[in-house]
Amino acid sequence: MKKPIPDIVIGRLPVYLRALQHMMDAGRSVTSSQELGERLGISAAQIRKDLSQFGEFGKQGTGYTIEFLAQQIQAILKIEKVWEIALIGAGDMGNALAAYQGFNQRGFHISKIFDSDPNKIGKQIGDYKVLNIESMESEIKKANIKIAMLAVPASVAQEVTDKLVDAGIKAILNYAPVSINVPEGVRKQYIDPAVHLQRMSYYLK
Amino acid sequence: MKKPIPDIVIGRLPVYLRALQHMMDAGRSVTSSQELGERLGISAAQIRKDLSQFGEFGKQGTGYTIEFLAQQIQAILKIEKVWEIALIGAGDMGNALAAYQGFNQRGFHISKIFDSDPNKIGKQIGDYKVLNIESMESEIKKANIKIAMLAVPASVAQEVTDKLVDAGIKAILNYAPVSINVPEGVRKQYIDPAVHLQRMSYYLK
Repeated sequence: MKKPIPDIVIGRLPVYLRALQHMMDAGRSVTSSQELGERLGISAAQIRKDLSQFGEFGKQGTGYTIEFLAQQIQAILKIEKVWEIALIGAGDMGNALAAYQGFNQRGFHISKIFDSDPNKIGKQIGDYKVLNIESMESEIKKANIKIAMLAVPASVAQEVTDKLVDAGIKAILNYAPVSINVPEGVRKQYIDPAVHLQRMSYYLK
Repeated sequence: MKKPIPDIVIGRLPVYLRALQHMMDAGRSVTSSQELGERLGISAAQIRKDLSQFGEFGKQGTGYTIEFLAQQIQAILKIEKVWEIALIGAGDMGNALAAYQGFNQRGFHISKIFDSDPNKIGKQIGDYKVLNIESMESEIKKANIKIAMLAVPASVAQEVTDKLVDAGIKAILNYAPVSINVPEGVRKQYIDPAVHLQRMSYYLK
């Protein structure tokens, strides 16, 4: 049996992919582990080692064809298809996410939005009508949605998480500033602006 | 001269700190590089190596005192003091950030909010009155603010970034789904939900 690839390596692939897509947007066609490394603050050796876990994507001395490498990473990350997402919470953050232009072409599409507030249920947000959170489990099961974004108040984040897990959700992106517990087999990630700010404050005088 | 510590190492410190704070919230007082590693999907050896770049924070066999290690990391990241932040953009995302409870006690405080929309300028958002973006440079200079969060439409992100840099901003957290260019000496980070979603889609069937 093959050893599973460490999650920290998986976590770097989307960052490589984003850099490759920025290069493509700028009209570039070839890059190197050195250039990628300099852009990302990661050593070239680390990038080569990470990519070598999945196959041979470049040639010594000629570097990587950006489009090909991007396609390979997309395939590894299973985003050649588009994943439907359930968004929970139609407050300011939910509205911002519903309007966010960064999901298209990166493998994701918000499919349904839920809230518990009677003043929000039934309201139109862009293309979406806000659904009653009471119907969340049945709607998610019916549509076979596997990914959810959690934009609810911290106080209810765990309760909603438990319901999402019951509904068959396997990956949760949590915007609430609170830790959530999920059972084995369910992935979680946090959107945590403080982590990014702290990474920069280190360098400030 | 000491070799600078790689940014990828600096980037892991806030993640260690967040895990330590979750442990403290749960009433814990001692941990180990093994436990931290299992929580975070990072090898224990990597964690010990990262921390050893800054000093001796634990003893072989007895692990780390959580509170002490957290304080040390806070000092390294320069967040024993509170950094004032300028928030640019009073749309849905700006409103969500103004209300976000995750900055307090983690080293940051939103000080001023700016927008260019006449319908938003002068409006109250929580404790803040939205200021005219025309006054952004002078207000930021006057208050000596070094960090900005960018929650503006992608189409104006670069233009606003240039003005922020002119105003003396040294660190920008960009929520717009677009790449921004900053001169040397200015840090940037992206809040990019697609990166987090892609890290999880890898594991989905």
